[in-house]
Amino acid sequence: MATGALPGFRDVFPDALVRRRRIFAAWREVAARYGFEEYDGPPLEPVELYTRKSGEEIVEQLYRFVDRGERDVALRPEMTPTLARMVAQRAAQLKKPIRWFSLPQLFRYERQQRGRLREHFQLNMDIIGEAGPLADAEVIAAAVDIVRVLGFGPGDVRARISDRRVLAAALAAEHQVGPAELPAVLAALDKFERAPEAAAAALERTLGGGRQGRAGRLLDFFAGLADPGALLALEAAAPLRECLDALRAMGLGGFVEVDFRIVRGLAYYTGMVFELFDAARSLRAICGGGRYDDLLEQLGGVNLPCVGFGMGDVVLGELLGERDGPPRAEPAVGVFVAVVGEADRPFAIALAHALRERGVAVEYALKRQALGKQLELAASRGARAAVVLGPDERAAGEAVVRTLASGAERRVKITDLEKDYVF
Amino acid sequence: MATGALPGFRDVFPDALVRRRRIFAAWREVAARYGFEEYDGPPLEPVELYTRKSGEEIVEQLYRFVDRGERDVALRPEMTPTLARMVAQRAAQLKKPIRWFSLPQLFRYERQQRGRLREHFQLNMDIIGEAGPLADAEVIAAAVDIVRVLGFGPGDVRARISDRRVLAAALAAEHQVGPAELPAVLAALDKFERAPEAAAAALERTLGGGRQGRAGRLLDFFAGLADPGALLALEAAAPLRECLDALRAMGLGGFVEVDFRIVRGLAYYTGMVFELFDAARSLRAICGGGRYDDLLEQLGGVNLPCVGFGMGDVVLGELLGERDGPPRAEPAVGVFVAVVGEADRPFAIALAHALRERGVAVEYALKRQALGKQLELAASRGARAAVVLGPDERAAGEAVVRTLASGAERRVKITDLEKDYVF
Repeated sequence: MATGALPGFRDVFPDALVRRRRIFAAWREVAARYGFEEYDGPPLEPVELYTRKSGEEIVEQLYRFVDRGERDVALRPEMTPTLARMVAQRAAQLKKPIRWFSLPQLFRYERQQRGRLREHFQLNMDIIGEAGPLADAEVIAAAVDIVRVLGFGPGDVRARISDRRVLAAALAAEHQVGPAELPAVLAALDKFERAPEAAAAALERTLGGGRQGRAGRLLDFFAGLADPGALLALEAAAPLRECLDALRAMGLGGFVEVDFRIVRGLAYYTGMVFELFDAARSLRAICGGGRYDDLLEQLGGVNLPCVGFGMGDVVLGELLGERDGPPRAEPAVGVFVAVVGEADRPFAIALAHALRERGVAVEYALKRQALGKQLELAASRGARAAVVLGPDERAAGEAVVRTLASGAERRVKITDLEKDYVF
Repeated sequence: MATGALPGFRDVFPDALVRRRRIFAAWREVAARYGFEEYDGPPLEPVELYTRKSGEEIVEQLYRFVDRGERDVALRPEMTPTLARMVAQRAAQLKKPIRWFSLPQLFRYERQQRGRLREHFQLNMDIIGEAGPLADAEVIAAAVDIVRVLGFGPGDVRARISDRRVLAAALAAEHQVGPAELPAVLAALDKFERAPEAAAAALERTLGGGRQGRAGRLLDFFAGLADPGALLALEAAAPLRECLDALRAMGLGGFVEVDFRIVRGLAYYTGMVFELFDAARSLRAICGGGRYDDLLEQLGGVNLPCVGFGMGDVVLGELLGERDGPPRAEPAVGVFVAVVGEADRPFAIALAHALRERGVAVEYALKRQALGKQLELAASRGARAAVVLGPDERAAGEAVVRTLASGAERRVKITDLEKDYVF
């Protein structure tokens, strides 16, 4: 028997590819509406590109190896370091803000569990060179518009937005959390919803003093974040408020809620962070992103602020699957050209090619077959119509067009078929 | 500075991606016309999938390594073994002939030379389950139609077709070359055009007897293949003649010439083989393919005849480059929405989103900027038009639409802009 695919990798049959193509089309359509240009980079990169600045989880799960030239290389786990390199190469020439997107396949060597994959495709959309909150609103709006294009409304998908600058300001003012402690406190907050006990233990380890001390007060602060009102009124929240206003002006306010419990794992975010979730919260995040104003300088040596997000094909596919059921193959054939006898074949081939020149998806039998068998193949392909060429019709410069759903037939001039006949 | 891309890998900037996208669009358009369905598979596969049946060159150049689970794995160098596995999984359910295509990125660890890459994208189109020559014609026609869609004619691109069965018949009848010697003789013929001395030496090694013996007579036979007439008249050439008739019926005869010196390197071809070349022969082959009736059984355990080809993006890109010059970025923005003052901004954002809902590619300034600066950004994006919102016009429910090429301006109702105004 054939060697199977590696664990965590997918053989994508045409029926499943229909769904991926639908997702890709939504990604590209919205990116185009928003005036983004597409770029791409290598799926294999030097390990060094990731060990310097990527999040810890990403480095732990690198799909890495030593190549035949003794280089430490990795299948790319994320696109941002490649983006940073590319922007650095052309930073001087590119008109800011740079609005770029890409659809890379990404890889991670994660322990196999519950059908988690080791590869997926991920839309990356980034605005580079603009620090203001309208850029934040722009990428959040694009993410929301993608799920809208796929037919989901605010009852299906929710966007949760936070801003690390607001949290930092509140933590500094109310809990004396300085820049040195902030990452550990944010990491604890990131755990708080899923695993409150682990978050508490982490806080105690970091801050000392037990539940009665600062750790306990911070846990109360975390719990209080369920109501975002107080923090949203802070001066540090002015950019976030402007971002929300813009989303409302676009008519997307119904999708959005402020939730300061959203941290996003990656260490490199510096401001607004956001996630899209299914409303029932039964799946992982549909997308996540935020502002990372320092990363490009650290990675690529150019000091440009950035905001962007990544949206994978897997959760989006699950969401479509919950609503629409398993993906179904689409008919690949529009018109089937059939022959009565072998003498008709050269004419059938010529007609088939003329129809293809018109852009019609055409198939015909590649071997000698009875007309009934040919029509059976046509039906199994889901063709709308069959064109039957026989000696009598040909003598009159005509062919029989049979609508396969109804069985209705009519004679049509071959010159009309070749030109603009609508099947 | 940023870590550079690995040797042989490409950072693809938006201008270069325009060209790749054009090639992909031509591939998908023709595949659709011909009624082919798209599939995909993993870019990483078990090494075993290739060491069993791929050509020697492919195995030598495998981009292989040992993964963290101690598996011998390789970045896929070709798609056919994956295709064989997938077809084997569903052989019973799939209606024959199977018409499938894919656009995989492929990898090889080749010594770096003259800008040769270690990755490229390759269209794979295959018909599985049909042994007759009309299937051969179908895939050759699709390959030719792709270069036609890209604007090339028979003066630019030539298809050269051969059939190993015809060569085998002639070699057996005239030179007593049996199945055991045939692979070595075909390998020598494959070298004959590029390196006649190496071909001669290989023949002498294989057959013995020096230039005066069988090796010498075979070299004369090779030289005589420049005129295909005699072989084309053989009974073994009946399928090839039928394939050529079909290509002529499609109106593609002008692209095609029979050339029995075409062998194609891969050992697994069993019948018709073909290549597309630029007419000047200054580049490598644009595409190559043929019939491989035994491979699926060897690889996947299902006995189904196959015919197909691979067409890479690199040579096709070079050909487009020779004709069109370097690729140019396309305007990503159709309409730029500008504001006179900050009070206009919420209305501008609302209008921008309404235009995006119509499918228009829209950008607006993400920060406070003088109108002149905004129009400058609009022009640098290549936008067709700018919509300028100011307090006076807004009071009248209108905006100014400025055509950027001419500078012509007119006032238009905002409700018309949101609905169906043509810019």
